[in-house]
Amino acid sequence: MQPAPGFNPLRSPDDRRLTRIAGPSSLVLFGVTGDLARKKLLPAIYDLANRGLLSPSFGLVGFGRRDWTHEQFAEHMLASVKEHARTEFSDDVWKQLRDGLRFVKGSFDDDEAFVRLREALRELDEAQGTRGNHAFYLSVPPKEFPTVTAQLRKSGLAESDEDSWRRVIIEKPFGRDLASARSLNEAVESVFPTDAIFRIDHYLGKETVQNILALRFANHMFEPLWNANSVDHVQITMAEDIGVGGRAGYYDGIGAARDVIQNHLLQLLALTAMEEPISFSAKDLRAEKEKALAAVRLGTDLSSTTARGQYLGGWQGGERVLGFLEEDGMNPHSTTETYAALRLEIDTRRWAGVPFYLRTGKRLGRRVTEIAVTFQEAPKYLFDPSQRASLGPNALVIRVQPDEGVTMRIGSKVPGSGMQVRDVTMDFGYGHAFTESSPEAYERLILDVLLGDPPLFPRHEEVELSWKILDPVEDFWAAAGRPEGYKPGSWGPQSAERLLARDGRTWRRP
Amino acid sequence: MQPAPGFNPLRSPDDRRLTRIAGPSSLVLFGVTGDLARKKLLPAIYDLANRGLLSPSFGLVGFGRRDWTHEQFAEHMLASVKEHARTEFSDDVWKQLRDGLRFVKGSFDDDEAFVRLREALRELDEAQGTRGNHAFYLSVPPKEFPTVTAQLRKSGLAESDEDSWRRVIIEKPFGRDLASARSLNEAVESVFPTDAIFRIDHYLGKETVQNILALRFANHMFEPLWNANSVDHVQITMAEDIGVGGRAGYYDGIGAARDVIQNHLLQLLALTAMEEPISFSAKDLRAEKEKALAAVRLGTDLSSTTARGQYLGGWQGGERVLGFLEEDGMNPHSTTETYAALRLEIDTRRWAGVPFYLRTGKRLGRRVTEIAVTFQEAPKYLFDPSQRASLGPNALVIRVQPDEGVTMRIGSKVPGSGMQVRDVTMDFGYGHAFTESSPEAYERLILDVLLGDPPLFPRHEEVELSWKILDPVEDFWAAAGRPEGYKPGSWGPQSAERLLARDGRTWRRP
Repeated sequence: MQPAPGFNPLRSPDDRRLTRIAGPSSLVLFGVTGDLARKKLLPAIYDLANRGLLSPSFGLVGFGRRDWTHEQFAEHMLASVKEHARTEFSDDVWKQLRDGLRFVKGSFDDDEAFVRLREALRELDEAQGTRGNHAFYLSVPPKEFPTVTAQLRKSGLAESDEDSWRRVIIEKPFGRDLASARSLNEAVESVFPTDAIFRIDHYLGKETVQNILALRFANHMFEPLWNANSVDHVQITMAEDIGVGGRAGYYDGIGAARDVIQNHLLQLLALTAMEEPISFSAKDLRAEKEKALAAVRLGTDLSSTTARGQYLGGWQGGERVLGFLEEDGMNPHSTTETYAALRLEIDTRRWAGVPFYLRTGKRLGRRVTEIAVTFQEAPKYLFDPSQRASLGPNALVIRVQPDEGVTMRIGSKVPGSGMQVRDVTMDFGYGHAFTESSPEAYERLILDVLLGDPPLFPRHEEVELSWKILDPVEDFWAAAGRPEGYKPGSWGPQSAERLLARDGRTWRRP
Repeated sequence: MQPAPGFNPLRSPDDRRLTRIAGPSSLVLFGVTGDLARKKLLPAIYDLANRGLLSPSFGLVGFGRRDWTHEQFAEHMLASVKEHARTEFSDDVWKQLRDGLRFVKGSFDDDEAFVRLREALRELDEAQGTRGNHAFYLSVPPKEFPTVTAQLRKSGLAESDEDSWRRVIIEKPFGRDLASARSLNEAVESVFPTDAIFRIDHYLGKETVQNILALRFANHMFEPLWNANSVDHVQITMAEDIGVGGRAGYYDGIGAARDVIQNHLLQLLALTAMEEPISFSAKDLRAEKEKALAAVRLGTDLSSTTARGQYLGGWQGGERVLGFLEEDGMNPHSTTETYAALRLEIDTRRWAGVPFYLRTGKRLGRRVTEIAVTFQEAPKYLFDPSQRASLGPNALVIRVQPDEGVTMRIGSKVPGSGMQVRDVTMDFGYGHAFTESSPEAYERLILDVLLGDPPLFPRHEEVELSWKILDPVEDFWAAAGRPEGYKPGSWGPQSAERLLARDGRTWRRP
């Protein structure tokens, strides 16, 4: 499949050979008027087109309650593209894309609207040659999933035939515990077959997350060290410096563990800890991730392996900020945590006895996501204490965001007549190392859906395994009353410091 | 021992605690009017004083045939310091140093001159408080060693007593084969005890060479990989871009192997390959280096494990340069090699089957000294050939000079929707990582002599072991006629390329 002439004419034949390009297809976007669509999804679709990765036979259908014409939808999309797209604007690309834009007005309980949607897709098949291949992106609250999928079934849109495919894309949260995740899944799986369901965890679309696989398995240097013989512990951090802001209503009752640990952090843990897969196919990759998740143990005394907190009001970066309980629309008695930390172990031969510390929080010191593998200390007898006062253990840090890249901390001799040793860092940054621009996570994931390429999408088994880890923690916290407060701009509550202090360790200050 | 107030007042108490400072002593420099003294030794002595590392009770005696007064020697030294010293000039430091300068006129066969030398040292003991501690630096051709040491014995200068020490410093070449090295050593050891003899290989004074020890043993990450299970091969290179120039007379009959491999490269090999010592003391470090050198094997067919060449005339860097045989004063029938390469193996459990390739040459593409440890390739099955077309094996490169530092080459994912992997480098540079300035190699080594700290000086056993490796090579080459020519600015003769090609490898182009 060749892109149309107007699609990124700069792409070289060599690039084309190496790049996977989507075939004829259309994408239906439920929740098209929402924030995610405006800021991420619509710009990502344009960027894919601009990079020459979409078929010229591509259609995009917006579905929503607004009284828009096709042209008004196109104007909405154009504005969002001009504001948020990452590639340069091209009139030619936009014109070609606009030919395939349609808008269908309706609410999710309106059978007629789904008949109109079916008609719109049929018309696109004829006008654009999209060949009956349709992906349905449910950018809507999870409580709507059963309604929308039922309507898709009723209107016949969920059924594929031998010559075409139907796929459905759902976004987290995949439930709020194991039971709700199961019933949500049943609603979707009763309509679409398992391999047609794409669960988006946009973290898995990030280049640096996929680079975990390349680093571990395309190199000889790391894998011999990647086990309990050499690794002292692992810290996985996703810190945000902002508060919940306008999302207070959504966030209350969810909290940091459900919002971030259940999906992003446990997926990062699985990719870091899993055994080498026999291929990067979805089946083989998921099998290894599931084995790692199934081996996770929290310990029996959750008071010593978990910590949580709620951010207080105060000053952060020279600005007065509200505490979590003071946020607009927040229940002032909420016990929802905005910071969560866990100490896990993985009961495998590779990782026996190596703690994995996971933490996430809002209103922390800095926005950063990283995986830090800290190695054991080198034997010390060759260096006396004054010589190694500035020497720590070796560490390999995968910087997921921002400033994507990899840092290694090693000890080196300090210039001078003695044998002082001191930590230095060796660094590689995506921005410096590559002229290729990184596709945005949503670009990558939407393209993979259109290609039917599922390795980056967690399947339901992984979701269940994650909830099995989290459910006891949530139960324990629910019975334990109000979380400890922490200052905005700090690195979380004191109980989190104690969590590591009990092991004689400290959190990184990234 | 505190430095005098004039000596580098900026040094902090903390620096002082960590830094070793020489005690009262004098240094006698034979060959004081030579190039090495003017460009390296005299400036290094000044820099040591300026860094506060010499005792205020320090004396320096120049010995030579010129008809100089003490003042003329001081002027000579001042000029060399102003031209070549690395630290800023300080009048206070210079005045203090000048008070301890003496010149003794004489030739090496003149008994009276050594009586005058003894008097000068006795006078310095009184005037400067050097306390009878004397080091004799023989910056003279090796054929003069027996004469000078015999004179030192005859004049009673070689004998120390319980309260003072006498040391002698000799420079390479330590002979031109095993037999001559032994007789040279006998001449020196008949006068000075073994532990008073300091053999200078200035490469061992370089920060980056000492950092081999820190990298290997202050880190956890490297040692588990530092063996035949993980390392594919090692390349040790010392390349010069200049020719022999004015040293043609000296160089003819010596050649690249005796001039560089016997000392510098085999020492680098020993530090890279040795087992972990139980301490960095001279005794423990030398024991491990000797074990590594004793285990070196060249193989029986030297035509397949050695290569050599002579540089031809031609163009290099836009300049017309002479061939080796056309150099001023050169024997036009010389068979001396200006390029030498060896393929060695080390018969230990750690290194069994891992080739170490050593090479050195003049008029090569670039001036560079480095140790490159190339690891085995990662298993490939996870990446298809098009995905790993730009992926090589991992490598750790210790850059000895110039641009001192360490580079690691690893594979990383290339940004984009596929799973391409490509080599990237992670780097640490001394110049960037440290604000401390590196002492020049001669500074470090002269200070170590005055401190009586011998780890960085090879002992005679190491010299013998090196000649045992080289002697068969030199014999083989002597019988093999004229070396192959190579173009100036190239990376050596074709036979050197074939040496690696036989193993399915190629030389690095650093």
